Amino acid sequence: MTPRWGRWGPDDEVGAPNLIGPAEVRAAVGLVSAGRVIKLGMDLGPATVVPPHRKRIERSMSRDGGDYAAGARRPGGFQFAEEVWSFAAHSGTHIDALSHAWYDDQLYNGFPGNGTRSTTGAQRCGAEKLAPLVTRGVLIDAAPGSSLPASTPVTADDLRASGVALRPGDVVLIRTGWVTAMVSDPLGYCDHEPGIDTSAAEWLAEADVAAVGADNYAVEVQPAPPGEMFPVHQLLLRDCGIPLIENLLLDELAAAGAAEFCFVAAPLPLVGGTAGPVCPLALL
Amino acid sequence: MTPRWGRWGPDDEVGAPNLIGPAEVRAAVGLVSAGRVIKLGMDLGPATVVPPHRKRIERSMSRDGGDYAAGARRPGGFQFAEEVWSFAAHSGTHIDALSHAWYDDQLYNGFPGNGTRSTTGAQRCGAEKLAPLVTRGVLIDAAPGSSLPASTPVTADDLRASGVALRPGDVVLIRTGWVTAMVSDPLGYCDHEPGIDTSAAEWLAEADVAAVGADNYAVEVQPAPPGEMFPVHQLLLRDCGIPLIENLLLDELAAAGAAEFCFVAAPLPLVGGTAGPVCPLALL
Amino acid sequence: MTPRWGRWGPDDEVGAPNLIGPAEVRAAVGLVSAGRVIKLGMDLGPATVVPPHRKRIERSMSRDGGDYAAGARRPGGFQFAEEVWSFAAHSGTHIDALSHAWYDDQLYNGFPGNGTRSTTGAQRCGAEKLAPLVTRGVLIDAAPGSSLPASTPVTADDLRASGVALRPGDVVLIRTGWVTAMVSDPLGYCDHEPGIDTSAAEWLAEADVAAVGADNYAVEVQPAPPGEMFPVHQLLLRDCGIPLIENLLLDELAAAGAAEFCFVAAPLPLVGGTAGPVCPLALL
Amino acid sequence: MTPRWGRWGPDDEVGAPNLIGPAEVRAAVGLVSAGRVIKLGMDLGPATVVPPHRKRIERSMSRDGGDYAAGARRPGGFQFAEEVWSFAAHSGTHIDALSHAWYDDQLYNGFPGNGTRSTTGAQRCGAEKLAPLVTRGVLIDAAPGSSLPASTPVTADDLRASGVALRPGDVVLIRTGWVTAMVSDPLGYCDHEPGIDTSAAEWLAEADVAAVGADNYAVEVQPAPPGEMFPVHQLLLRDCGIPLIENLLLDELAAAGAAEFCFVAAPLPLVGGTAGPVCPLALL
Repeated sequence: MTPRWGRWGPDDEVGAPNLIGPAEVRAAVGLVSAGRVIKLGMDLGPATVVPPHRKRIERSMSRDGGDYAAGARRPGGFQFAEEVWSFAAHSGTHIDALSHAWYDDQLYNGFPGNGTRSTTGAQRCGAEKLAPLVTRGVLIDAAPGSSLPASTPVTADDLRASGVALRPGDVVLIRTGWVTAMVSDPLGYCDHEPGIDTSAAEWLAEADVAAVGADNYAVEVQPAPPGEMFPVHQLLLRDCGIPLIENLLLDELAAAGAAEFCFVAAPLPLVGGTAGPVCPLALL
Repeated sequence: MTPRWGRWGPDDEVGAPNLIGPAEVRAAVGLVSAGRVIKLGMDLGPATVVPPHRKRIERSMSRDGGDYAAGARRPGGFQFAEEVWSFAAHSGTHIDALSHAWYDDQLYNGFPGNGTRSTTGAQRCGAEKLAPLVTRGVLIDAAPGSSLPASTPVTADDLRASGVALRPGDVVLIRTGWVTAMVSDPLGYCDHEPGIDTSAAEWLAEADVAAVGADNYAVEVQPAPPGEMFPVHQLLLRDCGIPLIENLLLDELAAAGAAEFCFVAAPLPLVGGTAGPVCPLALL
Repeated sequence: MTPRWGRWGPDDEVGAPNLIGPAEVRAAVGLVSAGRVIKLGMDLGPATVVPPHRKRIERSMSRDGGDYAAGARRPGGFQFAEEVWSFAAHSGTHIDALSHAWYDDQLYNGFPGNGTRSTTGAQRCGAEKLAPLVTRGVLIDAAPGSSLPASTPVTADDLRASGVALRPGDVVLIRTGWVTAMVSDPLGYCDHEPGIDTSAAEWLAEADVAAVGADNYAVEVQPAPPGEMFPVHQLLLRDCGIPLIENLLLDELAAAGAAEFCFVAAPLPLVGGTAGPVCPLALL
Repeated sequence: MTPRWGRWGPDDEVGAPNLIGPAEVRAAVGLVSAGRVIKLGMDLGPATVVPPHRKRIERSMSRDGGDYAAGARRPGGFQFAEEVWSFAAHSGTHIDALSHAWYDDQLYNGFPGNGTRSTTGAQRCGAEKLAPLVTRGVLIDAAPGSSLPASTPVTADDLRASGVALRPGDVVLIRTGWVTAMVSDPLGYCDHEPGIDTSAAEWLAEADVAAVGADNYAVEVQPAPPGEMFPVHQLLLRDCGIPLIENLLLDELAAAGAAEFCFVAAPLPLVGGTAGPVCPLALL
């Protein structure tokens, strides 16, 4: 796909979320009728499964109840606990920043890949540039009541067949049911996931969506065709500036049966990061 | 203040956010008219100031643009960057979980403080139990256009004088202007902050607010009266189950002049944690 | 075994290494004839196998060659690389400090177990109190040219049968050949190791050794008898103040055929730690 | 200085410690007469001062005495404590690996600087390649009983004036007294240290020393001449393959008055690292 750069100016680091303006926000909140809030983000803890090649999630208590049991005392009887967290940015539910993936040494909008360094992190398109998303959400359930088999592609034809009518600025969530494989088969979860292929990605990009999410490891089907790596990442993140939302929990939302809803996601603004951890909400 | 435990049952770990039901959610989204989204969370990065006693925020690139410049190659020309983050849970903008502070060896609702251990983190009232907040937000600006002097208490009388009429389930945000001290005087930022005192905390608790936030280090005035430590934490978190939202950025919201707004905050569900990092939004 | 506490005074945190005095140091260096130096410590890196319940070893480059390839420049053409390491104290080759294991709430010499807290680490018998060991080393090869089967105990009779005559202040190294299981079976490496049992531990303690080491996970045979956990740790570390040296590499030393040698080990003085990582040397 | 590469073959990653052979080891242990062991390494803990640009040393208890006080129980009454450490490789007393500093994109012996990457660490001359040092140590006290003023160079003439006769394979330790500034002035400790200049470095390299150490931040005088950065690092590490030992504690050794001694240092073999933490010993 020809890179769609320059559409929001040569300095733009936001990409497709620029498609969400006041009208889209108003329309989104107008979809709320039941007053129901559904969490789409997963718990993050030492027991959360992460791919074998990534750092495990660590929680280190710097002060806890054991200290008081062991005799520690503070003025006024005050007792408190604190901890330090350490995890890979792409753990759990997160939004891939536009700095996450690229090719030919150029990120989205032509920014140099060389600008992402050990010393600085991503100098362009870091996670702190991810716009908060408040817009219409649309769920496409590719496996109602079940789970797609490993490595099943979700194609443009599949999306068309869903009958969904997209509008610019929509966030499209694709349910594969695959997230249940995370615990039972952590390695297969990454390596053989069902997900969208490049035909679907192009169709979504042409529909001017603001972001694409799924309940799998990387939104896109794995493995990629021979000789390729993450072609949907290359197309959506780098060529089109469309953030990806990964490791979503979509079963409760699917069960609720809402065709559309108000989607809200405000990722942690990690400066120079390549992803923003987030707990997105669907408001029904 | 007499602990208000048992109100939502002996096993409740949510506390005052139970006051937000479908009606409150519907009312909140009904406040949106301009379609404007204001971020209330601060950027998190190595340059973000944290109190001297806490770990600094660390970003460690595990793969970056320098690797490709140095010669690394992937199939299909794919290039990507990733990193690991490490930070104290109470860094930047975050919501204190009900497990954060207590006294007499009992947390909110009588759960044992001893249950928060090095090996387990908080077994009760951890950050993963923090309810997402979608409700009416109310801003009380204690220092319009400026900043309160160090150690200035904001009292119940001050809150009453603001003329604000609270409703159960509201999130109340108190602007002190103090967050600007974070960079200029990191130690003073913690030790001498203006903020609410226990009279204000009691008034807010009696109004049945769902949560209280401020643009300072700990919501409450520092230092505490002699012989006490964080009495507002003890009262709101432990006695009343009311989460605190700290290190907010409130200047843009104050400048917008909205008396009320739709407040949305979905903290990271850190299992066994004592705080949930978050980027809250005000929808106007 | 009756705890041997108080032998070096009520404040002693060193334990059996007190048995090494100037005479033992002189005797040890007097054993060097070939001028050969054998490393007994293993490499520590991300690929080093650690038990599944422990944190993996992490190396995070904060500055590297990729940064210069990507365009970074320093005055005078200077280029440098640095990194941060993170690992469990008991990773790789290390000496267990006397604070590592205890029972009945008392450490070696009666110090309270409660003194080891999240906030302080080990206030007594931390790794910084481990004495550097320069003394006679004696190797007992329990499986010459091969490896003991899983869970094989090395008993007092086995040690006696070796014909070794011990002297107070000796460091005794026991070769099981088991360390090769670390890579092939990381979980079995911990759970089913051959090693000394309590009869052997008592025999060594009565011989007044300064420390005991082995080429396995925990020096002692696993699993422990039903209802017990690490009885040799309890006996040697806690009752007798004898440090344990774990995960040694002893094949090259065994192949050298030296009956005795000069043993040198100076662990990292990690303040409040429960183990000191180390690369011991045998000088022949 | 013309790089002295190829002396030990095109694949050599060890450098000047190749000068230590069996004869040097035997001669070194032959210097031991008193049987006295002096630690030259400093304690490493959260309170250890590190330069402001480096990560602080962190100790995180994963299990401690507080857990048992809070009610944790293990079979057989077993109690134990463990922790995770995190620190910059160049914290405290350490040996700079030959991968630490370079220029013109080439490390010692012509290895490419590009080989040190975020993903791999140092593929050449990493800390795991540092040879253990067992050799004659020589102390040159540049400030007997006191401390050199800030930024005082120690020159070749100063070293010559000490009257020391060096032999190939010696480790030379230079006492400046500056290490006391670490606590009182952490920033000045790095920026204005007294230490050797390039004339001294050349003199030491010509004497064929195996390594050079000092009781300061970087062995060499700071600041460097205008337009240069760490010229002694460039000369010794990169051009000559001579490791540097930094942040030594030399006061006790100086007070002992030994002209020569047996020096032993076995750094942690951190794979792909740029420094090896170590607790060197002087045996007298």
